[in-house]
Amino acid sequence: MTRAGAEFESEGGERRRRPGRDLCGIGGLPVDAVCDLLGRARALEDAPHRPEVLRGRTVVCFFGEPSTRTRTSFELAARRLGADVIFFGNDGTTSAAKGESALDAARNLDAMGIDVFVARDRQTGWPQVLCHHLGARVVNAGDGVGEHPTQALADALTILEAFGRSPADGARALAGLRVAICGDIIHGRVAHSNLHLLPRLGAEVVVAGPEGLVDGAELPEGVTLAPSFDDAVVGAHVVMMLRIQRERLARGRDLPDDAAYHARWGLDARRVGLADPHAIVMHPGPMNRGVEIADAVADGPRSRILRQVTHGVAVRMAVLARACDRQGALPEAKR
Amino acid sequence: MTRAGAEFESEGGERRRRPGRDLCGIGGLPVDAVCDLLGRARALEDAPHRPEVLRGRTVVCFFGEPSTRTRTSFELAARRLGADVIFFGNDGTTSAAKGESALDAARNLDAMGIDVFVARDRQTGWPQVLCHHLGARVVNAGDGVGEHPTQALADALTILEAFGRSPADGARALAGLRVAICGDIIHGRVAHSNLHLLPRLGAEVVVAGPEGLVDGAELPEGVTLAPSFDDAVVGAHVVMMLRIQRERLARGRDLPDDAAYHARWGLDARRVGLADPHAIVMHPGPMNRGVEIADAVADGPRSRILRQVTHGVAVRMAVLARACDRQGALPEAKR
Amino acid sequence: MTRAGAEFESEGGERRRRPGRDLCGIGGLPVDAVCDLLGRARALEDAPHRPEVLRGRTVVCFFGEPSTRTRTSFELAARRLGADVIFFGNDGTTSAAKGESALDAARNLDAMGIDVFVARDRQTGWPQVLCHHLGARVVNAGDGVGEHPTQALADALTILEAFGRSPADGARALAGLRVAICGDIIHGRVAHSNLHLLPRLGAEVVVAGPEGLVDGAELPEGVTLAPSFDDAVVGAHVVMMLRIQRERLARGRDLPDDAAYHARWGLDARRVGLADPHAIVMHPGPMNRGVEIADAVADGPRSRILRQVTHGVAVRMAVLARACDRQGALPEAKR
Repeated sequence: MTRAGAEFESEGGERRRRPGRDLCGIGGLPVDAVCDLLGRARALEDAPHRPEVLRGRTVVCFFGEPSTRTRTSFELAARRLGADVIFFGNDGTTSAAKGESALDAARNLDAMGIDVFVARDRQTGWPQVLCHHLGARVVNAGDGVGEHPTQALADALTILEAFGRSPADGARALAGLRVAICGDIIHGRVAHSNLHLLPRLGAEVVVAGPEGLVDGAELPEGVTLAPSFDDAVVGAHVVMMLRIQRERLARGRDLPDDAAYHARWGLDARRVGLADPHAIVMHPGPMNRGVEIADAVADGPRSRILRQVTHGVAVRMAVLARACDRQGALPEAKR
Repeated sequence: MTRAGAEFESEGGERRRRPGRDLCGIGGLPVDAVCDLLGRARALEDAPHRPEVLRGRTVVCFFGEPSTRTRTSFELAARRLGADVIFFGNDGTTSAAKGESALDAARNLDAMGIDVFVARDRQTGWPQVLCHHLGARVVNAGDGVGEHPTQALADALTILEAFGRSPADGARALAGLRVAICGDIIHGRVAHSNLHLLPRLGAEVVVAGPEGLVDGAELPEGVTLAPSFDDAVVGAHVVMMLRIQRERLARGRDLPDDAAYHARWGLDARRVGLADPHAIVMHPGPMNRGVEIADAVADGPRSRILRQVTHGVAVRMAVLARACDRQGALPEAKR
Repeated sequence: MTRAGAEFESEGGERRRRPGRDLCGIGGLPVDAVCDLLGRARALEDAPHRPEVLRGRTVVCFFGEPSTRTRTSFELAARRLGADVIFFGNDGTTSAAKGESALDAARNLDAMGIDVFVARDRQTGWPQVLCHHLGARVVNAGDGVGEHPTQALADALTILEAFGRSPADGARALAGLRVAICGDIIHGRVAHSNLHLLPRLGAEVVVAGPEGLVDGAELPEGVTLAPSFDDAVVGAHVVMMLRIQRERLARGRDLPDDAAYHARWGLDARRVGLADPHAIVMHPGPMNRGVEIADAVADGPRSRILRQVTHGVAVRMAVLARACDRQGALPEAKR
């Protein structure tokens, strides 16, 4: 019953890891895998009952930095599939205080028979480190300035829904749609995952943001840098705002104050007017209202911000089922 | 499966809210609804098995101030009905630290498909605010100096039990019983809910307390103010002590020290002797032993303090089932 | 349904407690009870499905000092048997802040219908205090400088497995094996429980440790004190290292710095070479790497440290089932 034990019997030798179940970054997901996940997530939203396909499995939220929103979304996703969920915050309030390393803590949990580590940490690349050492599967819930792949999947599902597209269309699912992403592109892990995901589904992506937070970013194929925010928004079908994370920016960086930021990089009603008439507005949250987004826009009819949250639970259910090799037991996509 | 989404499709228009399932205060509960809840709670205590009528539902404890006791009671109540329970403390340790408002946090949780928000907060009227903005149902677990309705229901069930009364008797269920409530009536939300509840079940209620903490309170019909604590206790069938909440009192208020408070407003053996020979002693907890209540009384044969705790779980089960429109699936009251 | 109520109806009179279900210390477990627990734990590890024999039961982790590792192990054990688990940390973040004593908090939880208190506290003898006041069963998860009985049971199961022994052999199960325990014997609760357990299963136990942390300890029958660490290790089948708990040691105590401690009392490859060729290395965790144990040893082929963790979950499942009088419903031991 305690699977982890078996994993560790070959600890001295080479560790073999079955591919295709961890989710460290969007780059590790082929387009057909993305579309299968999105289709399953949509089918889960339509399902009249919970398919408890993870009954008897254990998911740990292994969080090295605080995040109630992402944690809650994963926790609900796991429970709705019937899994047990444990929270382990290795941020100084735990065994860390006794001098144990986060990696030793993870290996200990692994030995207790954990199926999936949902990992968030300040350290970029931490999910890959866990993959190297654990028998359990690893799902990245945000690593430093790296990626946040499940948020990007939720965002993709939100766009598909808003424009009546189907994940069955694979690399053409978002064809003809222009997505403007604005804010801190350099440090934004949500941005990174979306930049890798949306072009592969056929979208045209354009980024904009303050000097020092966008120029110099390595942009994937199919992504371009707009000279100004207005230029990015013109004709866009999706305007995706990013949170200004002052707590992540190096001290002394020259970022304008909130009012000045809002004037230059904030999404207000005027700028929404530049976009396509059917454009939608997105934000991964938590929002700095009055800074990167105006109240009237955040709560307005174009906003799909709360739909992103709703879809977030569904994609995390699909991702957790995949991590446990139970994706095939989920309801099949019908649309 | 994710109900919240549907709620938010009409976000731009007027929000219609079905009546009769939120519980913000005792005033919103007609006497027959009170008695049905109390009868169901009693039936739940008698039931040999757990009726898991909330299987597949999600309850969030959304707490803006610390409370382990009330939180645990609600959490146990929810789980014993088969619901999933999430805790969300919006007290600075969460997304609040990132500048997100409690209301944005609540709307996000709502979008994740929450059925019931159990809300505690320092802000009086906070449950009503949540009702206005959320698709989920709201149960008040204590709001500022407002109400604490489930505690009053637990107290009513405790009195019914002690005196062999039946909730089926509605507005006459507590007829002929004199209840003395002593302490901080002005700021006490347990007091407020009891003052609104007990007279409607037929009890005679008399209050007493220190100058400034009782005079000036608006007393509902059927409630009188006694000139002294002794006067209140004489002939009482129930003596309900309230916790002195020094942390809620304005700085500089002239409250006597603990020993002086105990001498004048504390319940000791002598004062219990003034009450009816079958009188019971109650306290919503946590107690300040030696201040508002003497050890010998708290732990003595008249004390029903731990029964209040036991009944608290049962009434919260009934209240949560009602919030989810599943009250009818609970066992029926037999006595 | 709420059992605690019934317990408290006789609160005024004498409390009668059925024997044989609490677990305060190893001394309270006869050898046949130990062996039955170990056999059941092993059978649980072999079981293809979870036997949810605690469905409908409630376990509270009542922790007065932080411990994520032990807490998580108990929590997983309880959930895998189908129980509900509540965490209650009475360490100042809870009702304690409102002046309520830990004992009042415990009695309140008890009144909510708790089946088992899993108790950890700085106060030696705290589980016995709880037994005196509660209707629920009590399992010691570490009390001050007292005991940590479930860790010792996990350790025994680890040794049985490593040497192909069977718990069915009772007092001869570990016959012929020499176990060296090194570190702070005086304050180590893991050490105390092992010193009481392992000799009763037939092991020869020898202890070693720094001056002041081992001399003067009252050693049970069958346990001897070695003049040096090297002397203890020579020919040992098991080398069990203890964590140096600097946070528990009185200020000003003369403990050498980490490097000096490691040189004299740390387990390195040279010292492992003094032991039996098939010797195993154990540590209850969390480890101070480079202090009481070298990295190469902790992660080396002789290490059974992660097996201890795995077995910890299984023995806690058996102990919790026993506390609820459901031990007989577990799978039977086959080896």
